[in-house]
Amino acid sequence: MYLTQGLHRSLQATPDKTATVHGDRSHTFAEMGDRVARFAAGLQGLGVAEGDVVAILSLNSDRYVEYYSAIPWADAVLNPINIRWSPQEIIYALNDSGTTVLLIDDAFAPMAPAITASCPSVTTLVHCGDGPTPEGMVSYEALVADNEPVADVRRCDDQLAGLFYTGGTTGFPKGVMLSHCNLLTSALGAVASGYLLQRDSTYLHAAPMFHLADLAGNLGANLLGCTHVTIPFFEPKNVLVTIEKHRITDVLMVPTMIQMVIDHPDAKEHDLSSLQRLMYGGSVISEGVLLRTKALLPHLRLTQAYGMTELAPVATLLGPDDHVDGLLTAAGQAAPHAEVRILDEEGNPVPTGTVGEICVFGANVMLGYWNRPEETAAVLKDGWMHTGDGGYIDERGFVFVVDRIKDMIVTGGENVYSAEVEGAISKFPGVLQSAVIGLPSDQWGETVHACVVKAPDADFTSEDLIAHVKGLIANYKVPRSVDFLAELPMSGAGKILKRDLRASYAKEQA
Amino acid sequence: MYLTQGLHRSLQATPDKTATVHGDRSHTFAEMGDRVARFAAGLQGLGVAEGDVVAILSLNSDRYVEYYSAIPWADAVLNPINIRWSPQEIIYALNDSGTTVLLIDDAFAPMAPAITASCPSVTTLVHCGDGPTPEGMVSYEALVADNEPVADVRRCDDQLAGLFYTGGTTGFPKGVMLSHCNLLTSALGAVASGYLLQRDSTYLHAAPMFHLADLAGNLGANLLGCTHVTIPFFEPKNVLVTIEKHRITDVLMVPTMIQMVIDHPDAKEHDLSSLQRLMYGGSVISEGVLLRTKALLPHLRLTQAYGMTELAPVATLLGPDDHVDGLLTAAGQAAPHAEVRILDEEGNPVPTGTVGEICVFGANVMLGYWNRPEETAAVLKDGWMHTGDGGYIDERGFVFVVDRIKDMIVTGGENVYSAEVEGAISKFPGVLQSAVIGLPSDQWGETVHACVVKAPDADFTSEDLIAHVKGLIANYKVPRSVDFLAELPMSGAGKILKRDLRASYAKEQA
Repeated sequence: MYLTQGLHRSLQATPDKTATVHGDRSHTFAEMGDRVARFAAGLQGLGVAEGDVVAILSLNSDRYVEYYSAIPWADAVLNPINIRWSPQEIIYALNDSGTTVLLIDDAFAPMAPAITASCPSVTTLVHCGDGPTPEGMVSYEALVADNEPVADVRRCDDQLAGLFYTGGTTGFPKGVMLSHCNLLTSALGAVASGYLLQRDSTYLHAAPMFHLADLAGNLGANLLGCTHVTIPFFEPKNVLVTIEKHRITDVLMVPTMIQMVIDHPDAKEHDLSSLQRLMYGGSVISEGVLLRTKALLPHLRLTQAYGMTELAPVATLLGPDDHVDGLLTAAGQAAPHAEVRILDEEGNPVPTGTVGEICVFGANVMLGYWNRPEETAAVLKDGWMHTGDGGYIDERGFVFVVDRIKDMIVTGGENVYSAEVEGAISKFPGVLQSAVIGLPSDQWGETVHACVVKAPDADFTSEDLIAHVKGLIANYKVPRSVDFLAELPMSGAGKILKRDLRASYAKEQA
Repeated sequence: MYLTQGLHRSLQATPDKTATVHGDRSHTFAEMGDRVARFAAGLQGLGVAEGDVVAILSLNSDRYVEYYSAIPWADAVLNPINIRWSPQEIIYALNDSGTTVLLIDDAFAPMAPAITASCPSVTTLVHCGDGPTPEGMVSYEALVADNEPVADVRRCDDQLAGLFYTGGTTGFPKGVMLSHCNLLTSALGAVASGYLLQRDSTYLHAAPMFHLADLAGNLGANLLGCTHVTIPFFEPKNVLVTIEKHRITDVLMVPTMIQMVIDHPDAKEHDLSSLQRLMYGGSVISEGVLLRTKALLPHLRLTQAYGMTELAPVATLLGPDDHVDGLLTAAGQAAPHAEVRILDEEGNPVPTGTVGEICVFGANVMLGYWNRPEETAAVLKDGWMHTGDGGYIDERGFVFVVDRIKDMIVTGGENVYSAEVEGAISKFPGVLQSAVIGLPSDQWGETVHACVVKAPDADFTSEDLIAHVKGLIANYKVPRSVDFLAELPMSGAGKILKRDLRASYAKEQA
């Protein structure tokens, strides 16, 4: 299995089909294959040899689709950088990986001097933006134009495909080593589930392309020879316009993105009827967002994927038919390519329904952490990836991630699960997003506090909202205070950063 | 990836769902998992250790589904024996592989003394039939009943899963070494294509279970947690009855089997509406059989798979939408998990449309031939499996196997392709099967000869048939002679053995 296999198949079967669309630019598979083979030659001309690391720091684009083929084509290893990171984190990932060539677009070119000054292993910056090539950089398009195509080395199977740096909540990011087999196993399994992509699908890259979530869709689309449509970054209006314009069938988003798209004031004005499948991950979907999504797109098949970078990335899937009461907080069942079980601290399986550590086995499990044998050994035991996520599995094999559910507030001795309160809030007309946290309280330990983003035309008070929530859940779970915010803090992957919310309240109080 | 992964998923998600049905007997996944874990313990108790070879000589049954999980569960290697082989061939495969334990059912128990006498490595015969256990054998059901379940060793990935002996046209069979990754890659790719199986499918094992063709369906069904329905052997009436009774959705057959099922006099009396997908392989489907299949089952989605044991087994797929004029003789396009190209004798790719050797690359390519490094090196070059099949690829990536098309007769200097003549014959009402061969002729080099099996109630002469064919194809292609036969000689995999037909005419003439 190898990242370039789908491209080879498309070159043979559908050379004249559209491979990539970005703005007004599009390429057929024949053109893309030619560009990939020429850029791979260009990389080799820059001295890139077997196993060298080539990093990417770029917004989404059709060229990003090319990088994922061209870099392995040249026998090199991918290092797609998180675009939300600080310069310090980026420099750390470049140095830790020993990256030799960095692809950098217009959005990040201003960071180049700092990178050059701090990353001695980076010998070449390749400018892959649409503007003029900055001094000291090599032009991507010139490398494509000036080199003759080389043959794919067909780097494959257990060979290293990429280093994917994940930011831990503590300390510096770790480079997750994923093989070609790891990545293709997850992509094949996700497609085999029937929940993502079909032949002749058109896939929209709405999430950032450095992220494993989008890469799962990316590789699935390659496997089936689908057309890739890219937008530079997630922006709800542009998602609506692009779905309509290119008759998008499949997209991968996080729930907060879904909410922003379906609650956009123009949502009803766009023809979204082409959209067949939406896979989401990163968090559970709230009942309100689910109901509004179903109202807008009754035929859309929604699937939740749970996983992590170390699992390349998919471990479990909650299919469209399982989006029912009682399962909306579940992460789904093991995907066709993976096995999941819950182990206790001694590594023994626990009984059904008992909380322990979620562990995953399968050909999607990472090779390990780059240059970190001890941290690898701590999480990879007998081939089982110890995710660090607490959870349990019910009698039908549904995995529940307790750490999500245990986004929990203890108030007056009662446990309040934020997801339940957010679900009740999400049903109130005019609520776009919410995040429920506990605020320290001398009297109660914690009190339930809601941070809410209103729709632009919404006109309600915190009392209105509290009255609504009181009708749905027990009184002790009802927020004691509500703040209306313009927006919620988000991670690069689109998750709401509750720790930042909590920190801002702590700061306020201090 | 590993053969047992689907069983583990089903044990977790659908323990009470029916896993296997055989006659009046059925087992849930919980029961099957328990039986598999107990039989694996039984095997270990018989001394089976890591990498030992366990052979199976049996008709189809629910237990055969269990063997494919229990043997790897016990860390052993499968050796499913071709049930059509002669005792000499069977003994050869047992000795060549060093098989230590042989599972043998009632149908083959009479062969046991010869095997015991000739296979010194075989220490134990396990009787897995329904009749009384013959003397000197161990009972399968006793091993299941008398052992406590053991944990799956999770033999996986590049580890050897099985030796699959293929009969060459010359010499003794070779043991094809397939890894767990090889087998799962092909199964995942076939399912990911969308042409075979879905969640909640019910799969009928109509083809012999030792064969890789059925194993592809078998493993696909395991991956998605489908119910397996087994019949002891292919028999068209029983296929009809079983489809209706168990609401079969998916089945895998060879075209001769399809013909026997759809042309069965009772075909219209059975409710076959549950059948959604039919995958076939081994040969192209004739236009007549295709038309009659579509008439009987308008909604059935037909897919051809081309491959071989060495490819675990699927390389290309001809999907339902490609069953159109001009493509019926094609083998389809590369499957999602494989890459196909045509190489010349020096190993260089040939231009589109040029005939050469069909070569395949992918994680489904075998590890090699057991104990035959030279024969392995002759077919595996830089990871590309050289199939030995001649063929070409057209401008849309469709692979044409020329050796099939080149089942060719040269008569009066003109090339006549048997498939074309058989296609014309197949459209004549009352024709069940035909095989067109060349008979030696002093005047013409060869003359076109048709061997035809009539429907039981058909009443036509060779002159009637020849007149019909004359209306469809050029005169020089029309058979000069026709023989009506009760049946055509078939291989174990259900292919018509033209070489046997030719031999019988040669014998007659001599």
